[in-house]
Order: sequence, then C-alpha cells, then structure tokens
Amino acid sequence: MAADFEQAIWQKINTKTKPVGALGQLEELAAQLCRIQHSLTPTLQQPALLVFAADHGLAQEGVSAYPPEVTAQMVLNFVAGGAAINCFTQQHGIQLDVIDAGVAHAFDPSLPIKHCKVAAGTASSLQQAAMTEEQLHRCQEVATELVAEQQARGCNVLGFGEMGIGNTSSAALIMHYVTGAPLEACVGRGTGLDDAGWQRKLSVLHRVREQHGALNDPENILAAVGGFEIAMISYGMEAAAKAGMVVMVDGFIATAAALLCCQRTPESRQHMVFCHQSDEDGHALMLQHLEANALLKLNMRLGEGTGCALAYPLLVSAQTFLRDMASFDSAGVSTQAEQ
Amino acid sequence: MAADFEQAIWQKINTKTKPVGALGQLEELAAQLCRIQHSLTPTLQQPALLVFAADHGLAQEGVSAYPPEVTAQMVLNFVAGGAAINCFTQQHGIQLDVIDAGVAHAFDPSLPIKHCKVAAGTASSLQQAAMTEEQLHRCQEVATELVAEQQARGCNVLGFGEMGIGNTSSAALIMHYVTGAPLEACVGRGTGLDDAGWQRKLSVLHRVREQHGALNDPENILAAVGGFEIAMISYGMEAAAKAGMVVMVDGFIATAAALLCCQRTPESRQHMVFCHQSDEDGHALMLQHLEANALLKLNMRLGEGTGCALAYPLLVSAQTFLRDMASFDSAGVSTQAEQ
Repeated sequence: MAADFEQAIWQKINTKTKPVGALGQLEELAAQLCRIQHSLTPTLQQPALLVFAADHGLAQEGVSAYPPEVTAQMVLNFVAGGAAINCFTQQHGIQLDVIDAGVAHAFDPSLPIKHCKVAAGTASSLQQAAMTEEQLHRCQEVATELVAEQQARGCNVLGFGEMGIGNTSSAALIMHYVTGAPLEACVGRGTGLDDAGWQRKLSVLHRVREQHGALNDPENILAAVGGFEIAMISYGMEAAAKAGMVVMVDGFIATAAALLCCQRTPESRQHMVFCHQSDEDGHALMLQHLEANALLKLNMRLGEGTGCALAYPLLVSAQTFLRDMASFDSAGVSTQAEQ
Repeated sequence: MAADFEQAIWQKINTKTKPVGALGQLEELAAQLCRIQHSLTPTLQQPALLVFAADHGLAQEGVSAYPPEVTAQMVLNFVAGGAAINCFTQQHGIQLDVIDAGVAHAFDPSLPIKHCKVAAGTASSLQQAAMTEEQLHRCQEVATELVAEQQARGCNVLGFGEMGIGNTSSAALIMHYVTGAPLEACVGRGTGLDDAGWQRKLSVLHRVREQHGALNDPENILAAVGGFEIAMISYGMEAAAKAGMVVMVDGFIATAAALLCCQRTPESRQHMVFCHQSDEDGHALMLQHLEANALLKLNMRLGEGTGCALAYPLLVSAQTFLRDMASFDSAGVSTQAEQ
C-alpha cells in the first residue's frame, strides 16, 4: 500500500514534461509533500511562522557578541514590523506570530505578542539546570496550544523561528548531546564573535558540560541546557507533525530543537523541510545527522525564521509543478528516444 | 565617487537590525542591485523572462537522449501553459515570452510566439559552421529588439532561458573555447544520457573541435558551434546590461551565452545575477570562471529559464530588506557590545 503510493507519486512526477529528475530537489520536495498529505495533489494552506523569543541565563557569561537586552528590543522590532522576518513573511503572505516564551522584559500586554512567558529568562546552565521540570512542561503546553490554534485557522504548513541572545550556546550543547560530536565542532561564532570571543564561548560551554555530565534523554537535555524558545519549538514541531502539517525548520537553533523532536518522535522527521543551511559552523553536521539537505544555502546566520520565509516559495513551486505541469501524454511531447 | 557610493551601500546594509553579514548572499545581491540601478533603494519592475528556442544540426548526431522534434513540441507546451517554466513564472508574476529563434518546425503564425526564426535549425557543426555571419547578425538584431521592447514596457529585470534539443553540446563547446577547459570537463549528461551516450557525445564534440580548430573571437565561436537561441541570449544579455537592467542568468546553456557576452563586453558581468547552479557537470566550472556564486543549488538540469523564475523571489527579498528593514538607530536596538 505504502509502496503503491510511493510508486504513484513517482509515476506522476516522472511523466511530467521534463527529463526524469530534471527538477532535482524540487522533485524530492514534491514527493515529501505528497507523503505528508497522503495526496497526489498536496495543497499548502494558510502558511504561518511562529517566532519564539526567550532569554538565556548563560548570556551573562559573555557567550554572545550582543548584550542580552537585544532579545526584547528585537521582539519590539518584530512587532513594529522592522525586522528581516517581517519583510520576508509579508513578501510571501505568511502569517507571523511572535511569542514571548521567556524574555527578561515586561512587555506592554496590549502589544500584538503571544504573551506566554514561562519566566524572565532561563537560569544559567553554568550554575544549575536552565529550567525546572514544571517550566519544561509549561513549554510543551504552550507550544501544543499554539499549534492547535494554527490548525484551527486552516494552516497546514508551519515554520519555526527564534530570537534569543545566547541561544547558539544552548543549541551547540544540545547538538553535542544528541549527535555525540565534540563541543569544538558544535560551537560557532553565533551572531559574530571574533576568535577570542569564540574561545571564551567554547570554554564556558566546556564548563557547562562538566556541570551536567552525560545526558541522553531529550527532556533532561532540554531542562539542563535548553532555552524556553528551543523547548517550545521542539514540542511545537512534534505537535505540528502529529497534526499532519508540513514543518518548516529554520537554521542552527531550530534544527537543534528538531534534533530533540526527532529523538522523541522519529516519525516527525518526515514532516520536516529543512529550509536553509546556516553559515553557523555546526549546522552542516546537524543536517547530516538528520540526513537532511537544506533547500537554501545563502550563508545567512540570522535566525528569526528567515530561512523558512525565504524557502517557502520553493515549497509552493513543488506543489505547483505537481499540480499544473502537463504530462508527456497530455502535451503530446516525445519521451526519451532510448528508454 | 564610486568608492563613496560603495561605502554608502554597505553603511545602509550594515546598520539594518541584524548582525553584520547575517543575511549572507542576500546582502551581496542587495549591493549588486544598488550598483546596477545607481540607487540605495533599487526597485525591480515588470520582471520578464525570454525563452529562446532553436534546433541544432548537431542533434542529428546522437548527442541527446531526446529526439529533435521535442524542441517544437516543448514550444507548443510553453504556449499551452503546461511546462515547468509556465508554473514558476505564473507563481511569481513574471511575464513569459517564448521566442522561435530557429526551430525546425513551421508554427501556426497565430500562436502567441515571438516569430523570429532565423532558419529551421543550425547546420551541423560537424560538417561546417553552425550559422552564417548574416544569421549571427540577425540574432543580434532580434535580441536587441526584444530587449528594447521589454524596456519600453518598463521591465528592468530580465531573465534568459532556452529550449533546444542538443544545445548542451553547443554550450559545452563554447565553454571549452572561452574557458580553455578540456572538453571532458565541459561535456555533461544533458537531459539524461547514460555512460555510452556520454561517450558518444564526447567523441562527436572532439570531432567538431577538430573540424573548427582553435577559435578565440566570440563571434567566430558563435558562428562555428553556437545555436540561434544561444546567440540571441548572448546579445540579449549585452543589450539588457547596456539598458541598465538586472540580467538573470539561468543554467548551463544561458551561462555559456553569458561567457561570450562577458568576453565581448566585460562590463555586462556586473549586471548578471546567476540564479541556479545546474546539475550539469561543467556549470560549476563556468561559474568559477565568471567568479559567480549562484543563488540556488537545487540539482536541477531543465533549462527553460526555470532557475531564473525560482530565484526571482530572492531578488525581491534583497530589494525588500534594503528598503523596509529598520536600522539599529530607528528601532532602538543595541549594537554589538564590543565593536
């Protein structure tokens, strides 16, 4: 049955008026959309992007080139429409929801933010667990509700982005725990550290690693070194996959959340479209671990879900060629002479 | 003056609310759009794609996996709206013009084709020059007129695509002549040759090379081994660059035309945006020769201008972030702590 469906997908793709395989990665993407929607005419509806923002106790340890208050400032910038992600979601008609997952700032309640603050930033994982079990559970509740809300408005393609000064540190630690790669391979320059800054970040993360020792369970990893935004993304991806949605994964931090999500629920993987391979050093390795090939490689390292928004038109293109292109038969075009 | 303008471009890009360089290749693209339009707020208008179709005498020598009549059949498919390029141009609001540059088929004159046939296919370059000097001159006239027509309708961003069974052979020979790379490195599998087919194609192209000997001048190269569609693309790119347009370059064949265009008029290069790095083996080398980094790498090998249409939204994104993103000052966001 599954094999029949897979055959039907490729029968449809391969009889379009183009050489077999000539649309490359778009063909793989089209096949994935078919599998996710159990349909030979998958349709993307009400695309949305959830951008989760939170602060990190570890940011006090000098792991970022930017001061922690930038997290809140950027949330206000999202709300005012001035950030990169505003430009790109508006360009492509993607609904943008900004979630205060745990920013260390009291936002005016009247602002168009999803006010879901778990706490004013995580604790520093250099001293203790970043979050309590209850806080982690709260992240799951919030994420599940937000995805249900998107489902209720008819969304079946959902992107996940983030903002949080210090969160490449959290993501690097998660990557280290899940993939087993040495910390040196997981730690990058984030938003723009110089050599000395990178060394300091690496040394801090080594101390965090010593503090928590070996960890295997995704919940324990999240509680020890995660961030509220990363936890919500991870649970949100799981909920979106369970709801049958296409899950658009952004860059380094969102992929760290995807690693945890796939560890918990491996069946989530087939719902994930990896949108952009980040310039952050460890991202290529993460994608390898997930056997993923990102759609875009534009050397960006911004987060905010920008990779999702920029890649979204390619998802639409995959849907569109599958639906609208003529077949060799219908167009009266000759096939390969010798096959 | 030019240095001042360049500084003003990067001053604008670098004060947007994002880490310096965090939008990667989109920033380079935005800077290029500024240079082309001599403006810090470049605006893309009336995007169009010209798809040139022509037949090749060399196609009779078994260099393609498809029979020559597919060129005409695909032109009819373009006109009926059933090809990949129809889907993608429609998706992005790009005007699509299909040009009969020299297809070996008499199209109904009432069809919405630009009827600019120079001849019913080129001569086989295995026997003689592919085209006469007059035919080449006619290609230049047609291309220049078509670009002027686009300019008259307000188009300032123009893509170039092609259709022509056998034209990867022509493009490989051009690549060999312009870059000096050995034929083995220039010859790929086109639309889907197997190993034996590739060997046959390579052996035919070696014989063509012997027939014509060494060639340096772009006009001589085009006349000897070119195609009508490749010649029109090459002259069209030159005319579009002269008209101050953004020139979107598609894959392997369009880039062969770009090589000749840049050889004739090196100043055209800065107008060119390379949209997609083809799966065709030689394309990466061609791009290296032009010091170009394509926007997309989706393993496609279809032509038709599909790479241009799929990359176009990224050009719009570059325009958009430059115009609409807030600056650190205007948004009240802190800059890097230590820089």
